[in-house]
Amino acid sequence: MELPVRDLIERLATSEPVPGGGSASAMAGAIGAALVHMVVELTVGRPGAEGHEEALTRIGTGSAGWQSELLNLAEVDATAYDAVVRARRLPRATDRERELRAFQVAAALREATRAPLATARAASEVLGLAELLAPIGNRNAISDVGVAALLAGAALRGAALNVEINLPYLAEDEPLRGEAAEELAGLLAIADERERAVRIAVAGRLA
Amino acid sequence: MELPVRDLIERLATSEPVPGGGSASAMAGAIGAALVHMVVELTVGRPGAEGHEEALTRIGTGSAGWQSELLNLAEVDATAYDAVVRARRLPRATDRERELRAFQVAAALREATRAPLATARAASEVLGLAELLAPIGNRNAISDVGVAALLAGAALRGAALNVEINLPYLAEDEPLRGEAAEELAGLLAIADERERAVRIAVAGRLA
Repeated sequence: MELPVRDLIERLATSEPVPGGGSASAMAGAIGAALVHMVVELTVGRPGAEGHEEALTRIGTGSAGWQSELLNLAEVDATAYDAVVRARRLPRATDRERELRAFQVAAALREATRAPLATARAASEVLGLAELLAPIGNRNAISDVGVAALLAGAALRGAALNVEINLPYLAEDEPLRGEAAEELAGLLAIADERERAVRIAVAGRLA
Repeated sequence: MELPVRDLIERLATSEPVPGGGSASAMAGAIGAALVHMVVELTVGRPGAEGHEEALTRIGTGSAGWQSELLNLAEVDATAYDAVVRARRLPRATDRERELRAFQVAAALREATRAPLATARAASEVLGLAELLAPIGNRNAISDVGVAALLAGAALRGAALNVEINLPYLAEDEPLRGEAAEELAGLLAIADERERAVRIAVAGRLA
């Protein structure tokens, strides 16, 4: 996240295993959170915002927190996936080595599953804030609320794909397998509703 | 695009008029294009890629081109919107000033409409490349093709919102008004089909 945008995107485009789609999803979520925050800043104190001060403060504080969390998750995801790649490269000549490698791969895979799951959760929160903001945000910036929701939605669904690609590699008796699948199903169902609500509110206020 | 990712996102979160949702959409499209390129790199020369060399080369070259174009559009969009803000601040005390200001605002608005329209067009191309890649890309990176399509789709729809918010401010007899609306409708209809095709291909290959 300290790299210039152009350099990061160029690094993403290479065959290096990290960063990948998990970090890209978290970044998209962070950009969505930043747009929510921007629209709050463009709304507070303006005509029409009277009576919404409390909600706007809550949306502003929330979006700043999730922006920071998602930027962090973009890095956590890369680190976690890198650990999977390194664990898979461990030697497996002896039984002892194979056992150690299997243990390390399993632990790394759990972390590499938890990272995009946390991204999906955070992106869902950003989408919820965009839904709260859509009816009350500055109408001149209503397209920005729409973009925020689109990016948060893409972040959530992208992170979900990154969880799903790992699940079959977790042990059958690993509780995370069922827990993650169940949590994702819930997040995706709520996302459909939130995206629809934002789409309707934004279209109505664009017209 | 030369700013560190963290700084850019922090600047996005402020009430400064640029960058805004147009640039954010272009960035999301560029990240999507980079992921398409990454998966091409992870596919070429691997078992299963035989017979797809020509398609992979075409997708790789295309994604590199659109990545660069979208990074450029992220800056063009910010510059164009900044020009609208500056034109609106021009003095309007005399008839002459008002006439000059109206002329400048109209010209700036046309450019600020053309920039996200170009972003929508480029994102549509990235989505098309993701559709071509989904059935033939390295299965271990299939979630990345899914994320690429999600980000390209969000970029297209986000750019479309940024075109739409400007259209009512263009003169009634400005040809761009009808042209942009017609082009967007076409791009959005194709996007629905492309997104559906990628979703099905990715889900089938994740399983």
